[in-house]
Amino acid sequence: MQFASRLDNVETSAIRELFKLLGKPGIISFAGGFPDSAMFDVEGLKEASQKALAEEPGGALQYGATEGYEPLRTQLGAFMKTKGVDVDASGLIVTTGSQQALDLLGKTMISPGDKVIVEGPTFLATIQCFRLYGAQLISAPIDANGVKTDELEKLIAEHKPRFVYLIPTFGNPSGAMLSLERRKKVLELAVKYQTLIVEDDPYGDLYFGDAPPPSILALSKDVPGSRELLAHCGSLSKVLSPGLRIGWMIAPAELLAKATMCKQFSDAHTSTFSQATAAQYLKSGRMPATLAHVREVYGQRAQAMGAALKRELGDAVSFTQPQGGLFFWARLTGANGKLADANELAKRAIEKLVAFVPGAPFFAEKPDVATLRLSFATADVAKIEEGVKRLGQAL
Amino acid sequence: MQFASRLDNVETSAIRELFKLLGKPGIISFAGGFPDSAMFDVEGLKEASQKALAEEPGGALQYGATEGYEPLRTQLGAFMKTKGVDVDASGLIVTTGSQQALDLLGKTMISPGDKVIVEGPTFLATIQCFRLYGAQLISAPIDANGVKTDELEKLIAEHKPRFVYLIPTFGNPSGAMLSLERRKKVLELAVKYQTLIVEDDPYGDLYFGDAPPPSILALSKDVPGSRELLAHCGSLSKVLSPGLRIGWMIAPAELLAKATMCKQFSDAHTSTFSQATAAQYLKSGRMPATLAHVREVYGQRAQAMGAALKRELGDAVSFTQPQGGLFFWARLTGANGKLADANELAKRAIEKLVAFVPGAPFFAEKPDVATLRLSFATADVAKIEEGVKRLGQAL
Repeated sequence: MQFASRLDNVETSAIRELFKLLGKPGIISFAGGFPDSAMFDVEGLKEASQKALAEEPGGALQYGATEGYEPLRTQLGAFMKTKGVDVDASGLIVTTGSQQALDLLGKTMISPGDKVIVEGPTFLATIQCFRLYGAQLISAPIDANGVKTDELEKLIAEHKPRFVYLIPTFGNPSGAMLSLERRKKVLELAVKYQTLIVEDDPYGDLYFGDAPPPSILALSKDVPGSRELLAHCGSLSKVLSPGLRIGWMIAPAELLAKATMCKQFSDAHTSTFSQATAAQYLKSGRMPATLAHVREVYGQRAQAMGAALKRELGDAVSFTQPQGGLFFWARLTGANGKLADANELAKRAIEKLVAFVPGAPFFAEKPDVATLRLSFATADVAKIEEGVKRLGQAL
Repeated sequence: MQFASRLDNVETSAIRELFKLLGKPGIISFAGGFPDSAMFDVEGLKEASQKALAEEPGGALQYGATEGYEPLRTQLGAFMKTKGVDVDASGLIVTTGSQQALDLLGKTMISPGDKVIVEGPTFLATIQCFRLYGAQLISAPIDANGVKTDELEKLIAEHKPRFVYLIPTFGNPSGAMLSLERRKKVLELAVKYQTLIVEDDPYGDLYFGDAPPPSILALSKDVPGSRELLAHCGSLSKVLSPGLRIGWMIAPAELLAKATMCKQFSDAHTSTFSQATAAQYLKSGRMPATLAHVREVYGQRAQAMGAALKRELGDAVSFTQPQGGLFFWARLTGANGKLADANELAKRAIEKLVAFVPGAPFFAEKPDVATLRLSFATADVAKIEEGVKRLGQAL
């Protein structure tokens, strides 16, 4: 059977092979990219779904508007308002998880051969998603304060990309937090070069101490002309439940209209049953307590992992303690002749019954094989300490 | 803002404009393509969703496998078995409505410029979906017994299409039922020309009298080599609830693997909350009664519409009484100097407070402007009779 030529642009993930090994009994996994199921507010979602079916069964079970279920769009607008973004229901569309927002951006914006700038490293599924639409990805370097905006400017000037894709707040895999100063700089670059910026923000609500700087979208009101050059993707997956597949996209009206047309032929609309359930949940007022709970638990786990990494691996790794999100991004230093290849370490670690994801596949260009990603989301503090100890032994 | 070149291949639907007029007070609409909300088994779905959350909350709310939630795949395999298809859980993937199955087929199979044969007329969203991937669509003529297989063979031989897309059973918009003989012929053509056949089957369970012939997929066991050249799309939207967005695709393993990879970057997976609810529903054993109910109600409505069309419009229209599905496909004959342009009739009909969809947009090539589609799904018998009376007046 002959398949479409666009499939030649993606390779099956090396990570997939790794994941097959995770079923090994007794393994402690820092490899996942998902939240802890134990954190889901099952009672709240049960009530919300029952209310959705009781109050408007037709709305929850019938075909719905491609743009999204109106009561959910209204609730999401109100949710964004609590985060300093002025948007009403018509300024956003609901997507089937924020993964679909990426897919719709690809379908709507990328012609084969177009250049797109992403962070190096960035979300693996973004790389593959955009490549399926024929994008040529350019990697902008980051540090602990997120993308280096001086380097980013050079790349924009040189490559004139179709758009720039950033995960500015506790990004996957970097965990980095783009500084306030750089956020403003990104907005200025958008206007200066008339370049669309895509802000992917699934982790912004998962902060452990002080709140992070406002999103790039929230800051756009201070930079005239920038709002019309911004697309922002949100998600309930990391804070409430990935299984609902509820994401949203805020973008200029023209882009939103084109993305809606594409969505019509992608999946008609996002499950109205999920949408009506999410709308009832947001309306119920339980969200603030849910957010407080996940922040507290993940914060403890992040602290435990940071302490354990220092204790067990010492100067053999360097990392910045994440202020939120789900991930540590670390680098093997090779100090004292220790291993500096994370692929090799991953293999040894599996033998010691601990798993993580090597960092190289997260780079669209110039992979750094010394990097690795560790999730602290799904193991409790005792498991984290034991797992990092095993990692030290593997190293 | 500059958008992707693939958007140049689609036009915004003329039907959309018509739908804006449907809000007019007092209008009777035969224009929709959706089932009647009053037919949804709300109680059954309420129980199913509660059970899903009670029995395996993690499974219903966490990220899931891209291929689908295992218990649902098992139930869908069993459901297909009742329809004469031998498939197990690993032989199908769950899609976000069958619309997504079409999207994944486009993404996986169609390179820009590839030819795809569809029926003339065919499902509007299929035309747009495939064109977004750059397909050149070829239209194969149909009659009351479905696609004319002799003409289809000529077109396959001439165009060597990437695949042939058919809605063989009570298709949208034609309502036609492909005869048993032609189904076998399609399978023979698949093998003879080594051409992939896509069977889209959302309406096959909605029959009013005798069951239709087995699906092309079910018949493939009698034609050696044909099963490896078949993709089959199913859906719970028309028989249970569109809002769940549960469809599935059965296809050769290699195609299924590629489609799964594409789905990973489209929406990661279909809502596990919807999937777990659908799995519990199918497991509950309520489906046979639900099917019997929708068959009975839609059957009565179809009968009423057929009788009314004969009574009120006489020889000014020709049509074949549908044996299932949701639609009448009719043609204005122009007899006795009556109108033969369905676009014009649609405008006059709106003035008389009745709506339908003109048939021309359903043709990928050579539109027949005398055709029209009338849905009998959402109006009760009294409204159908009144609506067709108004249609007669408009004519």
